[in-house]
Amino acid sequence: MNTKLSGVLAPVLTPFDSNLRPDHARFVQVCRWLIEKRCGLAMFGTNSEGNSLAPDERIDLLAAVVDAGLPPYRMLPGTGSCSLTDAVRLTQMATKAGCAGVLMLPPFYYKNVTDEGLFSFYSEVIERVAEPTLRIYLYHIPPVAAVGISHDLVERLLKRYPKVIAGIKDTGGDWNYTVNMIDRFSSDGFDVFAGTETILLDTMRAGGAGCISATANVNPVSIVRLFDTWQAPDALQQQETLNALRLCFSQFPLIAAMKSAISWATGDRNWLTMRSPLQSLDDVQRPLLELKLRDINFSMDGLEPLQVA
Amino acid sequence: MNTKLSGVLAPVLTPFDSNLRPDHARFVQVCRWLIEKRCGLAMFGTNSEGNSLAPDERIDLLAAVVDAGLPPYRMLPGTGSCSLTDAVRLTQMATKAGCAGVLMLPPFYYKNVTDEGLFSFYSEVIERVAEPTLRIYLYHIPPVAAVGISHDLVERLLKRYPKVIAGIKDTGGDWNYTVNMIDRFSSDGFDVFAGTETILLDTMRAGGAGCISATANVNPVSIVRLFDTWQAPDALQQQETLNALRLCFSQFPLIAAMKSAISWATGDRNWLTMRSPLQSLDDVQRPLLELKLRDINFSMDGLEPLQVA
Repeated sequence: MNTKLSGVLAPVLTPFDSNLRPDHARFVQVCRWLIEKRCGLAMFGTNSEGNSLAPDERIDLLAAVVDAGLPPYRMLPGTGSCSLTDAVRLTQMATKAGCAGVLMLPPFYYKNVTDEGLFSFYSEVIERVAEPTLRIYLYHIPPVAAVGISHDLVERLLKRYPKVIAGIKDTGGDWNYTVNMIDRFSSDGFDVFAGTETILLDTMRAGGAGCISATANVNPVSIVRLFDTWQAPDALQQQETLNALRLCFSQFPLIAAMKSAISWATGDRNWLTMRSPLQSLDDVQRPLLELKLRDINFSMDGLEPLQVA
Repeated sequence: MNTKLSGVLAPVLTPFDSNLRPDHARFVQVCRWLIEKRCGLAMFGTNSEGNSLAPDERIDLLAAVVDAGLPPYRMLPGTGSCSLTDAVRLTQMATKAGCAGVLMLPPFYYKNVTDEGLFSFYSEVIERVAEPTLRIYLYHIPPVAAVGISHDLVERLLKRYPKVIAGIKDTGGDWNYTVNMIDRFSSDGFDVFAGTETILLDTMRAGGAGCISATANVNPVSIVRLFDTWQAPDALQQQETLNALRLCFSQFPLIAAMKSAISWATGDRNWLTMRSPLQSLDDVQRPLLELKLRDINFSMDGLEPLQVA
């Protein structure tokens, strides 16, 4: 499957049951809801608590959404790992499932590793997976992973694996890095996705491909609308509206706040659960967030509390 | 098995075959050699490329050394993981195998997590493993993991799980942190291991329990001797000799340098292999290291090149 990804993708929040196991039914439900809102599925990202999952848990969750009939060509699962073995296994599984691509963190335990070492890691994954349909999107998020992706590394990977290296999610927070990345590589078919919708308009104007953003979990329709109409006269106004909603969430620990908002909007308390080391909002934060949500008439339009038999 | 750990432990280097798979035969061989040198086995640590291994690879390697008849009560495998599921599984396996304890990193993907979140992570592991023989040594290595272990976190864990929380490996590089840790908790039976033998003498004088140090892989006899005789008149001189050898290695990427030294001393080239993102010494570094090794008459006394049938 080689439909090229573009537009808006959500790093899908992972629901857990009361025993902290991934909750397949709610995961399928929210993935279906996002697809209906025309949002792609970048499951197992940072905002998905993806690295808090064991490899088998990621494999089983992906199988659940594919088996539920959701379109793999709209999926970009996170398959990065500190372990080459796990990165290969996860990438293989995603490629065989027909996913549009994989979003791959560099191995992030060792710090100050060389570009040579990172090149070698990605290269080993590509050679071992050995699937002609494999498309890798690099994941640059130095504020969390600490290990980043340099422009020189991208150049070297693109030269060696021009068909496989398909793009990047850029959550670096450095606009010069972003623009230079687009200028230098977009003519090679390398797609740059902003890591937050707060720079979606700028990214589209600069020649980017869209955004993969946390808040797409709770605001997909408006973000997709800006992507669709970024050349319209009201684009800047749309961007400002997106930013206002983002700000409402980013005053709190973001992942916990989004889970709380879904719980509040649907009345489904199961959405509150998080896996350690991340924590749910506390009893001071949650009412504060809920006040704001009420203020802005927040809703998860059409997402019903799940009735599990 | 509740023999309390003390003394010198090596974060055992992990040998890989030419296909980058863990090399069980060489791993068992080097573990046996370290035990003969009276060095404990802190396998799957930072210097073991432990986080570059998949959970099943750690499980199989531990089974190999236990099956080979090496004493589990001298083993302290690294069982930390970003994923609660994997940390529980690895800790369970080590405890059931009769290991003296486990050395557990905090989950290290998310940065700036709260002590509450880390307490919850360790607490979940302890409650889920639910083995009365479980002994956890915390692993404080902020220069690599970025996520550290605060004194307040130790206090809280010790209060809730006084028998389970057994000590810490301190690779923070901050002597005040170390001394305060010893002063505050050693009377509760909490053992502080230095993360490098360069401060072994100071650590013993301050009331610590020993060291868990990279270079114990290549210099076990002399480090164990200082541990045994730290109150002898020549202790400071011994410490200076240890430091000189350490310096010889730490001028290079340390893990690669130790693997190169073993390869050089034994004539076994298989020891050169490393897993991405870490890399072997290059063609400039290796001869430089070998000159130094020749200078100091470096040897891995009694470790023979492995003849594999």
